[in-house]
Amino acid sequence: MINLRHVIRQLGALMGVLSISILAIAAWSALLQPDDSSGLTATTWSLLITVAIGMAAAAGFWWTGGSAKDFLGRREALLLVALSWLVGAALAATPFRLWAMLGPTVPMDHPFHNFAACYFEAMSGLTTTGATVLGDVDHLPRGLLLWRAMTHWLGGLGIVVLFVAVLPTLGVGGKKLFQVEAPGPATQGVRPRIRETARLLWVIYVALTLAQIAALLACGMSLFDSVCHTLATLATGGFSTHNASIGGYHSPAIDTVTILFMLLAGVNFGIYYQIIRRRWRSVWSDPELHLYLAIVLIAGTIVTISIWGRPLQTTDPAVSFADTSLLQSIRYGFFQVISIQTTTGFCTADFTKWGPVAKAVLMILMFVGASAGSTGGGIKVIRCLIVFKVMIAEVERIFRPNVVRTIRVGKMTIDDDLRLGTLVYVLGILILFAAGTIALIVIEPAGQLTFKTAATAAAATLNNIGPGLGQVGAIENYGWFTAPSMIVMSILMALGRLEVYAIFVLFVPSFWRRQ
Amino acid sequence: MINLRHVIRQLGALMGVLSISILAIAAWSALLQPDDSSGLTATTWSLLITVAIGMAAAAGFWWTGGSAKDFLGRREALLLVALSWLVGAALAATPFRLWAMLGPTVPMDHPFHNFAACYFEAMSGLTTTGATVLGDVDHLPRGLLLWRAMTHWLGGLGIVVLFVAVLPTLGVGGKKLFQVEAPGPATQGVRPRIRETARLLWVIYVALTLAQIAALLACGMSLFDSVCHTLATLATGGFSTHNASIGGYHSPAIDTVTILFMLLAGVNFGIYYQIIRRRWRSVWSDPELHLYLAIVLIAGTIVTISIWGRPLQTTDPAVSFADTSLLQSIRYGFFQVISIQTTTGFCTADFTKWGPVAKAVLMILMFVGASAGSTGGGIKVIRCLIVFKVMIAEVERIFRPNVVRTIRVGKMTIDDDLRLGTLVYVLGILILFAAGTIALIVIEPAGQLTFKTAATAAAATLNNIGPGLGQVGAIENYGWFTAPSMIVMSILMALGRLEVYAIFVLFVPSFWRRQ
Repeated sequence: MINLRHVIRQLGALMGVLSISILAIAAWSALLQPDDSSGLTATTWSLLITVAIGMAAAAGFWWTGGSAKDFLGRREALLLVALSWLVGAALAATPFRLWAMLGPTVPMDHPFHNFAACYFEAMSGLTTTGATVLGDVDHLPRGLLLWRAMTHWLGGLGIVVLFVAVLPTLGVGGKKLFQVEAPGPATQGVRPRIRETARLLWVIYVALTLAQIAALLACGMSLFDSVCHTLATLATGGFSTHNASIGGYHSPAIDTVTILFMLLAGVNFGIYYQIIRRRWRSVWSDPELHLYLAIVLIAGTIVTISIWGRPLQTTDPAVSFADTSLLQSIRYGFFQVISIQTTTGFCTADFTKWGPVAKAVLMILMFVGASAGSTGGGIKVIRCLIVFKVMIAEVERIFRPNVVRTIRVGKMTIDDDLRLGTLVYVLGILILFAAGTIALIVIEPAGQLTFKTAATAAAATLNNIGPGLGQVGAIENYGWFTAPSMIVMSILMALGRLEVYAIFVLFVPSFWRRQ
Repeated sequence: MINLRHVIRQLGALMGVLSISILAIAAWSALLQPDDSSGLTATTWSLLITVAIGMAAAAGFWWTGGSAKDFLGRREALLLVALSWLVGAALAATPFRLWAMLGPTVPMDHPFHNFAACYFEAMSGLTTTGATVLGDVDHLPRGLLLWRAMTHWLGGLGIVVLFVAVLPTLGVGGKKLFQVEAPGPATQGVRPRIRETARLLWVIYVALTLAQIAALLACGMSLFDSVCHTLATLATGGFSTHNASIGGYHSPAIDTVTILFMLLAGVNFGIYYQIIRRRWRSVWSDPELHLYLAIVLIAGTIVTISIWGRPLQTTDPAVSFADTSLLQSIRYGFFQVISIQTTTGFCTADFTKWGPVAKAVLMILMFVGASAGSTGGGIKVIRCLIVFKVMIAEVERIFRPNVVRTIRVGKMTIDDDLRLGTLVYVLGILILFAAGTIALIVIEPAGQLTFKTAATAAAATLNNIGPGLGQVGAIENYGWFTAPSMIVMSILMALGRLEVYAIFVLFVPSFWRRQ
């Protein structure tokens, strides 16, 4: 039987961490932001009430939970990971919902009057998706904007990795948790001495955060915007503080800094671990890193050429070019390619207006995704590489049935289990994509939703990207969906972020049975 | 090195068989159909010129080819299968193109003025897809209508199986050819004593053909229409002699007979072999047969309920119901479900007007497809079953890493090779589907093609179904596509029909290298 009590206790610890994060933002909101446009009181009160609810839940969970000495087994770890996101998003959504209730100037048709929309927004934050229900973020109180960005950052490297590094309460279960949480099959360099590694990853994450904030400040971005965009970039999230996203700054310097840090966030963090350990050879010879950069270069070049010399509409409605110069097409093309491939989802141009070649490249990148072990989503570059190699080997086997080939990726031999596991994973993502698309089509009122919108909304949430095409494009939002669709997409985001299995096992009866 | 000369010789034999079939139709067209509306001369001449071209090609290939004593190896067999369809479709397309040139009353904008469209039509016939470029088949000469139906029938059980049964020239290569040709992994009962089995399959196919012609005649269908529709049904093709397809007859009896024979055509022909051998136990216990019928029943029920009590438009523009009765919704719902799942593609109702649930079910069935070893296309029921079982086992392995489960389908143990092969196949189909969709979007002029149309056109050709949704729906056609798109879809049809590998290996460099 699964040790539910221990899981509940750890969930209590998570609620505590989230509550403390919200408390910090509430304090900042109360003390430093008296000029908050929607009224200091409503925002701060929303945050403070959430802290009270969160603390009560934390205490309740901790108290009803079992002893910390208990063994956190594999199944408990899986359940904890799933519940962390599903329950965590509910707490993270609470400030949004409360603000809509308490704020004196919140319009009646604001999406946050609907809890499903708040849950969607919070899940989008914690899963580092960056899909928003908000048509207007420019006028959202700064306390809520910072909390949105913070959900990205907390979700980014994984609340659970943070958990393993910060709270030494998990006992031996910690290793298994990390195995579940660290995305992708290639955690080779990171696995031994798990807690120490997790601490090091946390240091890397913080260091990158400080570096990007400094870089954005140097480009002339305000401190608040720099902090929010940094939290969203390193988590490959995508929430911005402006409706026009990064495109609103019209600054080549800001675009360049953002491109650089999105690219860094999409690299396997194990690579940074190797760099710190000065293991240069394994950095240079990493096959996923090579392919990741090659895809960026090739896709960026194709998109650049396909948009060159054509009209370009930036995400700022007031700014468009009748004829894109080569430099502009490099700047806007590569930004969008890197933003989509790393599954960040920032926008500088309205790519829904681009030609079919550019859109097709972006749609493929949505599924390819970033590197394993990064904060990015999608299928992951290394899985695509494994699938490609397995497929080639299978085709060859048709006419050379007696030749047995060993499949290698770098120094790693891809054994039968990993082959099968990878294929099942990729196939699972595609089936979920189809199921999500169909669910949205069936749920939404007839004629409301184009096929393109349904498919790209499912792809953009499942792969944790944010914007899609059509009615969920670069300058659109998800606020117009019905509540059931928002729940479906929230589940897709959790499935994508937790790499499917952690959620899926919950539906297998034997998971719950006594063993 | 691949023995190209021997392959060319066999290709000559195939051209001979096709030419003789066309000659038979030309003779019938000349002698029996003096009232042909578009002029006897043009149609008959088109067929006769094609016979001359085909015979010349046959003689040339046979003469340049190597000795019949040569060993037909695995690679030669694969190449022959691929070329049979790719070259065979070119010959099969010739009567259409010649008729457009010679026919005195052929309008200038007729699709057959374009060879790509003729090739598409012929490939659609030989691959038993049933997608047509023609908006108006009612006024096509009967000689061409019969030839279209005949391409289905020849393609149906596979020209190559016919080849193995009829022409004893292939030597030991015959078995390998059959392995490639017989669709699906489950050829268990059929494999031993290959030539005898192939002859028996041919007898079964002819017997079913005669039975259906008799049944349709008994329902009051004309002899010509009965023959054409039977050839199209047993091959799970879908070409009709009327624009309104089967829906034009408004006959519950004809609908029922068609449903029955579509269902029979979608069963693994190995089952009929077992029935003849009186091996009842292996018939009743066949897991694919159970699942195939269960899917029909469940999908049919869902579609029936979803269209019940709503307006229904038949494929005949003049006939529609304001309110579908239960009996009508069973009749039209099950017809369309079985037509799509068996990948036949006949229509009685304009299902593009149905609700999202019914459309979603039909779209899923497009990929599920019929049974392995049937004349139907799609992924095949047994592959879906294997994938489902492998996926469940993989999810379970996440929390029970030490439990090794043997996966069985009926009595067959699914070993590692078959697991991997099946997953690669299904993933390959989905990747081809995505690639096909993107190719169509990129090729067609911007704004001409909806995403829904592109996706369902790719799905309907790759899975050898025929109609899709949107602009390629039940009462639409493929004639408006540009020539490059028609070539892309012709390749998709060949890929789907030959189960991908036979075409794919041609692009692997080592396939052509000396071993």
